[in-house]
Amino acid sequence: MFSKTGIPLFEEMTWKEVADALQQTDICIIPVGAIEQHGYHLPLGTDTYIAQEIACRACSVLDKRGCKALVGPTIPYGVHPEAMHYPGSLQVMPSTLVLLLKEMCVGLQKMGFNHIILLMGHDGNVPAMQVAVQELEIENNLDVMCVNWLLPHLGDQKRLVPLDFADGHGGARETSRALSSFPDLVKMELAEPYIPSFPKKDVPCSAEPVLGGAVYRPIKVPSMAYYPDNCPGQDGDASYATAEAGDALYDALGVWLADLMVQEYELKSKEDM
Amino acid sequence: MFSKTGIPLFEEMTWKEVADALQQTDICIIPVGAIEQHGYHLPLGTDTYIAQEIACRACSVLDKRGCKALVGPTIPYGVHPEAMHYPGSLQVMPSTLVLLLKEMCVGLQKMGFNHIILLMGHDGNVPAMQVAVQELEIENNLDVMCVNWLLPHLGDQKRLVPLDFADGHGGARETSRALSSFPDLVKMELAEPYIPSFPKKDVPCSAEPVLGGAVYRPIKVPSMAYYPDNCPGQDGDASYATAEAGDALYDALGVWLADLMVQEYELKSKEDM
Amino acid sequence: MFSKTGIPLFEEMTWKEVADALQQTDICIIPVGAIEQHGYHLPLGTDTYIAQEIACRACSVLDKRGCKALVGPTIPYGVHPEAMHYPGSLQVMPSTLVLLLKEMCVGLQKMGFNHIILLMGHDGNVPAMQVAVQELEIENNLDVMCVNWLLPHLGDQKRLVPLDFADGHGGARETSRALSSFPDLVKMELAEPYIPSFPKKDVPCSAEPVLGGAVYRPIKVPSMAYYPDNCPGQDGDASYATAEAGDALYDALGVWLADLMVQEYELKSKEDM
Amino acid sequence: MFSKTGIPLFEEMTWKEVADALQQTDICIIPVGAIEQHGYHLPLGTDTYIAQEIACRACSVLDKRGCKALVGPTIPYGVHPEAMHYPGSLQVMPSTLVLLLKEMCVGLQKMGFNHIILLMGHDGNVPAMQVAVQELEIENNLDVMCVNWLLPHLGDQKRLVPLDFADGHGGARETSRALSSFPDLVKMELAEPYIPSFPKKDVPCSAEPVLGGAVYRPIKVPSMAYYPDNCPGQDGDASYATAEAGDALYDALGVWLADLMVQEYELKSKEDM
Amino acid sequence: MFSKTGIPLFEEMTWKEVADALQQTDICIIPVGAIEQHGYHLPLGTDTYIAQEIACRACSVLDKRGCKALVGPTIPYGVHPEAMHYPGSLQVMPSTLVLLLKEMCVGLQKMGFNHIILLMGHDGNVPAMQVAVQELEIENNLDVMCVNWLLPHLGDQKRLVPLDFADGHGGARETSRALSSFPDLVKMELAEPYIPSFPKKDVPCSAEPVLGGAVYRPIKVPSMAYYPDNCPGQDGDASYATAEAGDALYDALGVWLADLMVQEYELKSKEDM
Amino acid sequence: MFSKTGIPLFEEMTWKEVADALQQTDICIIPVGAIEQHGYHLPLGTDTYIAQEIACRACSVLDKRGCKALVGPTIPYGVHPEAMHYPGSLQVMPSTLVLLLKEMCVGLQKMGFNHIILLMGHDGNVPAMQVAVQELEIENNLDVMCVNWLLPHLGDQKRLVPLDFADGHGGARETSRALSSFPDLVKMELAEPYIPSFPKKDVPCSAEPVLGGAVYRPIKVPSMAYYPDNCPGQDGDASYATAEAGDALYDALGVWLADLMVQEYELKSKEDM
Repeated sequence: MFSKTGIPLFEEMTWKEVADALQQTDICIIPVGAIEQHGYHLPLGTDTYIAQEIACRACSVLDKRGCKALVGPTIPYGVHPEAMHYPGSLQVMPSTLVLLLKEMCVGLQKMGFNHIILLMGHDGNVPAMQVAVQELEIENNLDVMCVNWLLPHLGDQKRLVPLDFADGHGGARETSRALSSFPDLVKMELAEPYIPSFPKKDVPCSAEPVLGGAVYRPIKVPSMAYYPDNCPGQDGDASYATAEAGDALYDALGVWLADLMVQEYELKSKEDM
Repeated sequence: MFSKTGIPLFEEMTWKEVADALQQTDICIIPVGAIEQHGYHLPLGTDTYIAQEIACRACSVLDKRGCKALVGPTIPYGVHPEAMHYPGSLQVMPSTLVLLLKEMCVGLQKMGFNHIILLMGHDGNVPAMQVAVQELEIENNLDVMCVNWLLPHLGDQKRLVPLDFADGHGGARETSRALSSFPDLVKMELAEPYIPSFPKKDVPCSAEPVLGGAVYRPIKVPSMAYYPDNCPGQDGDASYATAEAGDALYDALGVWLADLMVQEYELKSKEDM
Repeated sequence: MFSKTGIPLFEEMTWKEVADALQQTDICIIPVGAIEQHGYHLPLGTDTYIAQEIACRACSVLDKRGCKALVGPTIPYGVHPEAMHYPGSLQVMPSTLVLLLKEMCVGLQKMGFNHIILLMGHDGNVPAMQVAVQELEIENNLDVMCVNWLLPHLGDQKRLVPLDFADGHGGARETSRALSSFPDLVKMELAEPYIPSFPKKDVPCSAEPVLGGAVYRPIKVPSMAYYPDNCPGQDGDASYATAEAGDALYDALGVWLADLMVQEYELKSKEDM
Repeated sequence: MFSKTGIPLFEEMTWKEVADALQQTDICIIPVGAIEQHGYHLPLGTDTYIAQEIACRACSVLDKRGCKALVGPTIPYGVHPEAMHYPGSLQVMPSTLVLLLKEMCVGLQKMGFNHIILLMGHDGNVPAMQVAVQELEIENNLDVMCVNWLLPHLGDQKRLVPLDFADGHGGARETSRALSSFPDLVKMELAEPYIPSFPKKDVPCSAEPVLGGAVYRPIKVPSMAYYPDNCPGQDGDASYATAEAGDALYDALGVWLADLMVQEYELKSKEDM
Repeated sequence: MFSKTGIPLFEEMTWKEVADALQQTDICIIPVGAIEQHGYHLPLGTDTYIAQEIACRACSVLDKRGCKALVGPTIPYGVHPEAMHYPGSLQVMPSTLVLLLKEMCVGLQKMGFNHIILLMGHDGNVPAMQVAVQELEIENNLDVMCVNWLLPHLGDQKRLVPLDFADGHGGARETSRALSSFPDLVKMELAEPYIPSFPKKDVPCSAEPVLGGAVYRPIKVPSMAYYPDNCPGQDGDASYATAEAGDALYDALGVWLADLMVQEYELKSKEDM
Repeated sequence: MFSKTGIPLFEEMTWKEVADALQQTDICIIPVGAIEQHGYHLPLGTDTYIAQEIACRACSVLDKRGCKALVGPTIPYGVHPEAMHYPGSLQVMPSTLVLLLKEMCVGLQKMGFNHIILLMGHDGNVPAMQVAVQELEIENNLDVMCVNWLLPHLGDQKRLVPLDFADGHGGARETSRALSSFPDLVKMELAEPYIPSFPKKDVPCSAEPVLGGAVYRPIKVPSMAYYPDNCPGQDGDASYATAEAGDALYDALGVWLADLMVQEYELKSKEDM
């Protein structure tokens, strides 16, 4: 089974298990990942695996509170034009991702899932995920929620894995999560530190929306300019990563997502009843 | 001419004026608006007109600094499922908006514009605008930037139009902008105050992304639940609006956008040269 | 307000005004224009502005007869491959125009408009407008009518603005209309006469369909061959234009369109009742 | 072989014959027909067969003048929402027809055909044919010409088959053409006269564009209202039809189309050289 | 009339004949052909004409058993990338073929046909035909059956036209069928024998699926490599063909298809009743 | 790591490992699975997991012969209208699957993979896989091969797991493969035998194409009729399954697929060089 939480992925369940779960819940979480380079030491599917684990953690937290949700089918494809000069990076067009997300959600709705979460595993997918949400509302009156955990997680990351240098894509915090949930696929011995220097931006809010800013200009996102030849393709120093830190990061994410679901869907925990 | 700044809209220019402008700049700003209800007192095209004026203000600021940009063709259509129960609200599908934005940008690129800004006039359009930006990068290697001014503008709005009650869609600040740039279309005598009460959200970052949050769930955005029958369809009290405040709000937005363009495109003002 | 007739554009109305109008009428007219070069002296949006004014004139005529119709949302994009070598000309693909027209009409139908007119502002749009009409009939059983005023207007044009040389795109008659409804955007001082010589066509009916012919071959329509380098991009001599003539031309068009609506929709004027 | 002219259809030729023809010409004519009810006596494919014969006639006329063109592949599908209440009528969506026409033309272009005519066999197809022509010009820079012979043929029809009552779809003139080129499929014994009365239209040019008018409103085109239950589905009296008249009608059409091709493509006949 | 069986094609029928037939049957067979090179001696439309005749034969067999089915509208376009280097070969994209097939079937369903057969005329069309069948089931719950007669016919072909060398595309057996049903379009005097040598394949089932194998790799299907310059474009020796053999081949195919329809649709013949 | 063969999945590799592999091979195998009910005891992702393992086995066989290929990114979605009445079954439209397959293959081609295999994991996907192959050949001149192992495997299955009753979807042989490669997801204790009785088909070749037949009629494929309420949703008796048998079945499939690749791509093993 994929996750140590004991929460199965949709694809790992039998049809009867899904049918039984539908007696208890109409919520499912679709992790939306990517096939994208993540340095010398992390697998291409890193974003997918992490999103799956976050979803499992949230379901596990809910379980303990007497609520239930499923980790719906995984979408392992993403949009990342800035990473395409690395062999192995393989993206879908945003429009295709929209189409695929819509078909999955409509299928789940027919099955009985009335509340669906599209869980971000890779930030470049958020626009397509949001378009899918809108079109599903317009065409199907379906309640789909797009969740990006990067922003709420910023504080936890700095608190749980304090570092005094830049740490992002493939860095110590992401590697910590990888060591926690899919250690067999992490090649720590190949990790090389690399701290790219990003240009300073003085104008307020000129960061990307997924980081709380207001400006989306992917053509200038870290690419060949920041990741020159022979660069491992990451931001940060993975040697600071530990499975324990990863576990703590996942815990924080799982609780946040479970809280969000309780708030949004007005779930009643056992204690409440 | 539309704008008091003296900056013409693309459609208002002759072909020769565009041809001449292309000798001096390869930047243009596409305002992306909506046809959406805005209370009893504001026209359906409010978002479009405001985005056009912000673009003109930024071009005017740049002009004074010796730089130039055009206000490209306007897209007057938007996505707003939450407003469709008001007659007059007329939306496009996000996918159609993507298609239209892409054709406009590719056409502008062929004409010589290498830097294009999609300027938000209505927040529900941001996902489609971002998808267009991605697909234009992937398919055309075109540098398009999606700009949402809501977030950077939050502080200015509170400073320039201080209010101690909720103010949003169609409220005092938006009405101020309307009074500044298209007063003939504002029917102040019909404005009625209406302050909907939104549910409190305790989970961190559970606001919408366009407001700096992490959760996109449009089906729960203010709709019939918040705007009951016989409600004017707005958040706030337009009677606090003044043209002067609107002018000051536009000024702040124009400077911010101009600064952003200088930063992103590394423009050199006259003083620098 | 855009039109001196006092008839507002859809985007200029509040939602309540649309709601009230729907108590009296279920007809609206969608002007379909273009962003296309129109010589040194007319703006790129000329076709859009003229179609808007014709629609307003027809509504004004109907108003006086006790009938009502709205000028629905404007479509400012057109198809004009023959004008694309002029900077500023910016076109949509016909298929995209079809899509946009269909979404607008379906939205208007949901709002309560059961009779919709697509009013030609640029002749190259007519095929896409007709395809939209067909698909709306087939898919939505919606009554949409595509109206091309070029043909019925030929006689009026010659009568009201007699000329003994060729006059077409951007010429004295079109400039007259511009001087009547959007004089601030006309740069008469820049106008230069240019009378292209079109090849003679002896075979009967080998003109374009929009002019009453039977042959559609846009690749041979006036283009670089007729509009050589340094040519202003027009047919005719704008110096013969006057606002008064333009006003008279609009009057004739407004009456024709109003009469057509009365005939097609079997409207009853006050006198009839 | 389909046509008595001896001109083969594209599908009837071998690849070698096409290859040889391409040494002499780069012109082909695509007949675009329909599968539509044509009264009790004419087959569903009437429009297709007639368009094929007109194309063959034109090629035959050209042949005699020392010029050459092929009758390209036939498109046997059409758009006719007004005929769908008759079993047997089977239409395509206009967008699908556009797609199919574009693929055929692009394929012919790759093969060496640089001048392609889309020949109307059914008037409801003209909008889709024109959109295809535009998109082929925009995307492929291909010279495609859409030809509607209804209008130039009006005079010849009245002269060659004089009648003092209405005659249209499935009437004496169309039946004459059928008797001339596909008599085996005409069931004269089943023909029943039916002269529907169309509403009078006083507003100038309010006829359909394909008949020289300016108004396209297919939902009001002859349909159930004019063709009531138990009506054969035609306009006119087929008993006035003769094969000889049909032959004369085809001759006139063939000469007109050949003349048009000579004019448009500046063909040189043998005598000219 | 196309077929000597006396069974008319759909396009050859009047609407009334279709209406009457619908009283007796709800089955129709759509022949799906191609415009593809077939050697020096066979027309481009060979696959279309053969599929039409097979459908007519099956209907004729059913007729004799007191059952009825129509030969629905023909699709004369196919997919054959391997034949595109021969002038005259003209293909559609598979996606376009899917779209066209779906529209035809949905139209037939509305007319009353609840059982539709897509009859293979060209093997490269089978994937698109099957996709159409699936989407029609998913979207329309329509019973469409895709039938490929190549495989069941292998034995009959060898028995009825025994040959001791390779015989395939355009060979003696296909030419026999052509001589039987459309002899006027066969140019036997131009036929040239050509026996290409295909590479031996030892791995079990590595033939194409339409021939009972498991491997689909069209880029390696006979193409320029096997059909060099100046090659007629066929497999086999047409001089062994006879109309009598073709007639026998058609008979076998007609009986097989009729038997299949009886089995699948549980038809009751007159004797059974 | 997913497979005991030690062959990693694409998503499990780092970008550098893909880059290095591209020095040795330009072949990759894309497993195409499904999310479909598989009885009470097998997970919804069964077809996906099995296709992945077959691909790994073939790569492992090639490795031993000194050749190399990658197991490309997995497509976990399938087409199975006949299984949609079971909760948990979640399908894509064939057209969407075509789109996704094409984007993946084009991306892999840009990366350097010139030979791509689409490996069937679920038979209903074969038509979409073949359409993708055709369109990739036509549009991208890319060599993609669609492989269906059901047919060549029939003999091995009967030999390695001899049974005297029907065994298919979710039966003893499929369960054996599951026990071999993903035993943790098999719930043998829940398995219930179920042997549906399929109607006898006497007409030759009237089986489905994926089983060597000629007739594709999915609406009649085992569905509610064969799988009544309270039926586990399988053909056969899983209690006869063993991991050892599954291993042997995989071995046979791996060798067959490796042999096929050697044959098709003319690979040279170490011994040959």
